[in-house]
Amino acid sequence: MAQRNLLYAQSGGMTAVINATAAAVIARAREYSEIGRVFAAHDGILGVIAEDLLDTAGLGEHELESLALTPGGAFGSCRFDLPALEDAAFYDRLFAVLAAHEVGYFLYNGGNGSMDAVLKIDAAAKTRGYPLVCVGVPKTVDNDLVATDCSPGFGSAARYLATSMWEAGLDVASMYSRKGRVFVFEVMGRNAGWLAAATALAAREAEAPPHLILFPERSFEREPFLHAVREWVERIGFCAITVAEGVRDPEGRPLAEQTLDKASPYVQLGGAGGWIAQLISRELGYKHHYAVPDYLQRSAGHCVAGVDRAQAEAVGRAAVDLAVAGRACVMPAIRRLGDAPYRWDVEAAGLEQVANLEKRLPDEFIREDGMGVTEACLRYLRPLIGGAEPGVGEDGLPLYRRLEFAAVERRLPPSPAR
Amino acid sequence: MAQRNLLYAQSGGMTAVINATAAAVIARAREYSEIGRVFAAHDGILGVIAEDLLDTAGLGEHELESLALTPGGAFGSCRFDLPALEDAAFYDRLFAVLAAHEVGYFLYNGGNGSMDAVLKIDAAAKTRGYPLVCVGVPKTVDNDLVATDCSPGFGSAARYLATSMWEAGLDVASMYSRKGRVFVFEVMGRNAGWLAAATALAAREAEAPPHLILFPERSFEREPFLHAVREWVERIGFCAITVAEGVRDPEGRPLAEQTLDKASPYVQLGGAGGWIAQLISRELGYKHHYAVPDYLQRSAGHCVAGVDRAQAEAVGRAAVDLAVAGRACVMPAIRRLGDAPYRWDVEAAGLEQVANLEKRLPDEFIREDGMGVTEACLRYLRPLIGGAEPGVGEDGLPLYRRLEFAAVERRLPPSPAR
Repeated sequence: MAQRNLLYAQSGGMTAVINATAAAVIARAREYSEIGRVFAAHDGILGVIAEDLLDTAGLGEHELESLALTPGGAFGSCRFDLPALEDAAFYDRLFAVLAAHEVGYFLYNGGNGSMDAVLKIDAAAKTRGYPLVCVGVPKTVDNDLVATDCSPGFGSAARYLATSMWEAGLDVASMYSRKGRVFVFEVMGRNAGWLAAATALAAREAEAPPHLILFPERSFEREPFLHAVREWVERIGFCAITVAEGVRDPEGRPLAEQTLDKASPYVQLGGAGGWIAQLISRELGYKHHYAVPDYLQRSAGHCVAGVDRAQAEAVGRAAVDLAVAGRACVMPAIRRLGDAPYRWDVEAAGLEQVANLEKRLPDEFIREDGMGVTEACLRYLRPLIGGAEPGVGEDGLPLYRRLEFAAVERRLPPSPAR
Repeated sequence: MAQRNLLYAQSGGMTAVINATAAAVIARAREYSEIGRVFAAHDGILGVIAEDLLDTAGLGEHELESLALTPGGAFGSCRFDLPALEDAAFYDRLFAVLAAHEVGYFLYNGGNGSMDAVLKIDAAAKTRGYPLVCVGVPKTVDNDLVATDCSPGFGSAARYLATSMWEAGLDVASMYSRKGRVFVFEVMGRNAGWLAAATALAAREAEAPPHLILFPERSFEREPFLHAVREWVERIGFCAITVAEGVRDPEGRPLAEQTLDKASPYVQLGGAGGWIAQLISRELGYKHHYAVPDYLQRSAGHCVAGVDRAQAEAVGRAAVDLAVAGRACVMPAIRRLGDAPYRWDVEAAGLEQVANLEKRLPDEFIREDGMGVTEACLRYLRPLIGGAEPGVGEDGLPLYRRLEFAAVERRLPPSPAR
């Protein structure tokens, strides 16, 4: 195959290390004579449709290093489900853009939905006879991708959350209160409890926070929960609780939506953590604090796990290798070779076994009472948050950098579709 | 004066570096032949009344180092306003405990309320003819203590919040949305906007987050605020907003209490950040995310500012020096000698000028539109978050340690008062 250009795009929610993947893709691609220019789509797949492409050629080695340590998505991302293949106008436009810029390799960095997009684009290329190698690159703080032992982005978010639970737990433990007190920590995870489980890494000794963890994999049972909270408070004066945002009641309704009050002029916010906190206040009379780190947990570049960064870079490099080798419709996956010492490598996983599937916490990782993790879960989690890094400036702030990218000159009239 | 024992107590809300002060107090006290044993009260002043004292003699050098880098209050704290001096039973009990343990030096580590407590205990000692040197030791993430250029604990919380705002800002900037989007960050500060102001340190270039900051020092004006949000979203697609928890409307009502719905069976939570987020959603139709770090911001030992730690230690040492020198009713205060390079020293401030007073953001630190900071404010803030530190273990988690303290054997019958 003659020299063809490579197009990289970021998709869905961001992570602290997705740009480390991007930097690795760019650096690796430069090593191949098969690859001409390396483009990035602005705002994910929407940037392809809009022919809004960025050229990475201007990035020097030092700038790639800065890129690698800056959280968020440097090229922009979007949440956009690709239409069915029958939507010929969409795919015609997509391939018009790819053709206009001689793109022969497409790397899509995302979660399970993005892997489905890769399959669709691949199929659309085949029906059009367009020569394109499509490769998925894994990324998600939710750790819910199948066929990979873990997902780049998860380890750093897990490290951040475990650290934060430890810290907040030390704080709430310090604050004497006659009434008893609880701390509720709402973490991401609509359907999978991996991030909630990761807070258990904070408990380095008996009776240390978190004392209870509520997972989306288990329905919320009010009485056993309140009983457990009361037991902890009576024993040690306080209780620290992790709540995954997606926890649901036995009828399948998210806790986060249960305080919606139709009569109010406001849509009530609050989420599962706030709901649990107010439930405890009302039923048990304890003082409560609750924290919602929201975006902080998936963008905490100051708390990146070295292992996670290394894996984010490894899948980026491997994706380029696979693309050049013509391995379409695969995703570089992390394979665990050992727990302690932790050893891993990268293998190729077929996207049919990844797309649109969700890996949830297995039963053997959840404690029998449904409100904690097992030793097997901790054994799985521990190595993923290892390898802390410095990366902080003299001024006390991180060394993040916003880079300027050259826009790729357009070769097509604007799309009527956008 | 013959050898007397020293009693140290922590009070009010915790910080990431209050234990660094504690460790410095203990180490310094050991250098003085005037000081016998060094006790810490368990759960602050309540531990004194309960004769619940801890002995620090068992802590070796390595343990003091661990203590210094562990956030939260190692000895426990409480929120408790001392009664008026007329409450003889309370003070009789207090001095019975001090006398039973030959306490000649009392160091109270807290905020402006604690400084009032120090004055009361000093006055009660004088009326009883009890030989006691009472010294205040400053601490508060709120930075609202007067007579000191800054308060130990503030710099680390400020560093954490500026870092977090930068990170979340990078994330929200990445996420394309046709509708426009906002990120709302609710930070501590009921009456003073120092922590809210500190998030401005994240903006290292033009148009970087945070774009708007709402301070307790300015009443919330809905129309100019919504107008400013819309301007930002129209210009760059998103807007990042810091909201101090104590922001009030022009009638003086906290925003946090305005969605209270008496008809609902639940006390509505949410706070000022949630309120602002839902206001923007309703009025402007933008997508929103909001984060509430709560305890995380005041216990982020993984994000301590080296300068803050150094000052926390310096005030601890100075407090012991002042106590031994017989300088009752003073507090070691930080004096700024220069902005850049930052130079500071410690001087003694009389507690009459500190107790119960609150230092709020001065007008010249708030931008004319009331929704941002001035260059003078940034000049003040910048050095306080400097001097980052490592302090992370191989496993990716901090090196915090919970220490065991020997309880001091009781010499009195239990207090009937507790």
